[in-house]
Amino acid sequence: METELSKRLGIEHAIFGFTPFPAVAAAITRAGGFGVLGAVRYTAPDDLRRDLDWMQEHSDGKPYGLDVVMPAKKVEGVTEADVEAMIPQGHRQFVRDTLAKHGVPQLAEGEAAGWRITGWMEEVARTQLDVAFQYPIRLLANALGSPPGDVVNRAHDQDVLVAALAGSAHHAERHAEAGIDIVVAQGYEAGGHTGEIASMVLTPDVVDAVDPLPVLAAGGIGSGEQIAAALALGAQGAWLGSLWLTTTEADLHSRALTAKLLAAGSGDTVRSRALTGKPARQLRTEWTDAWDGPDGPGTLPMPLQGLLVAEAVSRIQKHEVVPLLGTPVGQIVGRMTSERAVQTVFDDLTRGFERAVDRINRIAGRSQ
Amino acid sequence: METELSKRLGIEHAIFGFTPFPAVAAAITRAGGFGVLGAVRYTAPDDLRRDLDWMQEHSDGKPYGLDVVMPAKKVEGVTEADVEAMIPQGHRQFVRDTLAKHGVPQLAEGEAAGWRITGWMEEVARTQLDVAFQYPIRLLANALGSPPGDVVNRAHDQDVLVAALAGSAHHAERHAEAGIDIVVAQGYEAGGHTGEIASMVLTPDVVDAVDPLPVLAAGGIGSGEQIAAALALGAQGAWLGSLWLTTTEADLHSRALTAKLLAAGSGDTVRSRALTGKPARQLRTEWTDAWDGPDGPGTLPMPLQGLLVAEAVSRIQKHEVVPLLGTPVGQIVGRMTSERAVQTVFDDLTRGFERAVDRINRIAGRSQ
Repeated sequence: METELSKRLGIEHAIFGFTPFPAVAAAITRAGGFGVLGAVRYTAPDDLRRDLDWMQEHSDGKPYGLDVVMPAKKVEGVTEADVEAMIPQGHRQFVRDTLAKHGVPQLAEGEAAGWRITGWMEEVARTQLDVAFQYPIRLLANALGSPPGDVVNRAHDQDVLVAALAGSAHHAERHAEAGIDIVVAQGYEAGGHTGEIASMVLTPDVVDAVDPLPVLAAGGIGSGEQIAAALALGAQGAWLGSLWLTTTEADLHSRALTAKLLAAGSGDTVRSRALTGKPARQLRTEWTDAWDGPDGPGTLPMPLQGLLVAEAVSRIQKHEVVPLLGTPVGQIVGRMTSERAVQTVFDDLTRGFERAVDRINRIAGRSQ
Repeated sequence: METELSKRLGIEHAIFGFTPFPAVAAAITRAGGFGVLGAVRYTAPDDLRRDLDWMQEHSDGKPYGLDVVMPAKKVEGVTEADVEAMIPQGHRQFVRDTLAKHGVPQLAEGEAAGWRITGWMEEVARTQLDVAFQYPIRLLANALGSPPGDVVNRAHDQDVLVAALAGSAHHAERHAEAGIDIVVAQGYEAGGHTGEIASMVLTPDVVDAVDPLPVLAAGGIGSGEQIAAALALGAQGAWLGSLWLTTTEADLHSRALTAKLLAAGSGDTVRSRALTGKPARQLRTEWTDAWDGPDGPGTLPMPLQGLLVAEAVSRIQKHEVVPLLGTPVGQIVGRMTSERAVQTVFDDLTRGFERAVDRINRIAGRSQ
């Protein structure tokens, strides 16, 4: 499965795997794909350094990348405390009430809220970048908005390609103007932050909008047949995130959450602002229902909502309060029905792709 | 572009075109696809008979089909007046206020509301079927729910295949149990009534759920590349509706509406209950915004909403009140940028499909 982009990156298959777990990212890279480690949850530079050291040791010298949330709008000088102070008391009360209703225990004393996204802050993102550029990463991806110009330049100086996620052709054009190298077209069905336009329509929209820049298709891809579809739509590769959450290398820290993912069907996700303040697809739970229902106080804009719910989400995860337990995941969750090794999943993808190519050739009446 | 299903139907290309316009349906059939005439807007049996006569004369002896809304739940004995009486006065006032705000003129005296969907009523649907079975139709499609058992039997007795639209695997399984022959998997991005699951995920879901029944993919398909994607996902054909709305054979009765469709981007549709009471994708307008906004009274269940807005929609269309003017259409509307003959559109689809097959083979490293 070879495209111009996969050749440029020196990978065997044009399959890009986004994951917060170094073991998963390294296994994707070793399997012949391109592992991209999500860095948004790293607060301490040393933690990121430790995991990138590990990646470097376990990727057989093959290429991998890093995903950082780099805000184009600088918010220098703003502390978490400043942002916390902007959260209305009514919203805090709603969180307390909802947790109480479900009997969610407190965290143990001294236990930090592990689920705390701070990578959106200029200071944290910059620190992550300083670490990242000390490693031979081949790709730097930005999950939200266009990366700042100086970061693009710094990446290019080090021969690092820059990718950015887009939910519309217009959004993709802005990225192209910012000098990036690859657009990830993130369809409605994707896990995490998404727009309204489904991959079937979005992928060719974005391909046309940024031509000749390469486009990766994201959203709704969890089989080789879906990869073939994405490539038929003009993508130069597929970007998969959700599928890896139930691999044996993934470390969700919750058997109950893994069980929920394995049991969920493609209709069991919802695009909700409950987690970050921007619409993000995730498992539908009593937590998202509470926020999205008629009795909810309405969500706050990013980054307020994320800070507001950080401790609550940690408590729900820590104590595995099943009705409230969720995670960002795409509609493809319906295909995630067993725990398998990354290599096994990867082999399925490449085999499914070949099957789809056979099928398309039969339909087109092409002799093989 | 040949699948088992296209061979069974004796058509050259596995492209199914749904349209309310006989001239479009016949042109799709003549081009080597399969034209399906939407019958929901026919109230008088003679009108349907007249248009089927015309279809028969203009389809070069090639096969075509009919789409009827057949309610599985019988509502015999219920008249339009009974249903009208269930509409709250507050909702009627909201319609009047919204029309007044935009200065929408009345219809001329004696002028009937042309936009009036009555095909959902048992009596009307049955009359349509009595007419339809007098013609050599090859396919009977049902846009909403499973068709009643006696209709399936009657169709099969006359060698007519029965298709039904589904928005989830579960929905498709119910259709299969009802004895139908073909499932149309209608993705989130489609025009008209849709579920939440996007085509990229829904198509293989439904293919697996009803195997070995053939599945047509609907939603987000307006190019040959998108047809290739749908076929890669396991569909035995593509079902296209929106794309034909801006063909020269289409008769929208409104130049302003055609202009809006040609100008709209893929982000300019909305899935709203404003038209029928069930979520249906359509152009986003000030009319849908009024219903979906915080000051709207909430929509009524089907069929109340459709009856409530029927006259208003006719007035908006008749007088071409541009800010309110809309129509069911899918996200693919962004690709509809010029008025072209059906044959030209069709040639583009088959050429695009061949291009996509070439592309996939290059990526797969298959020599041609």
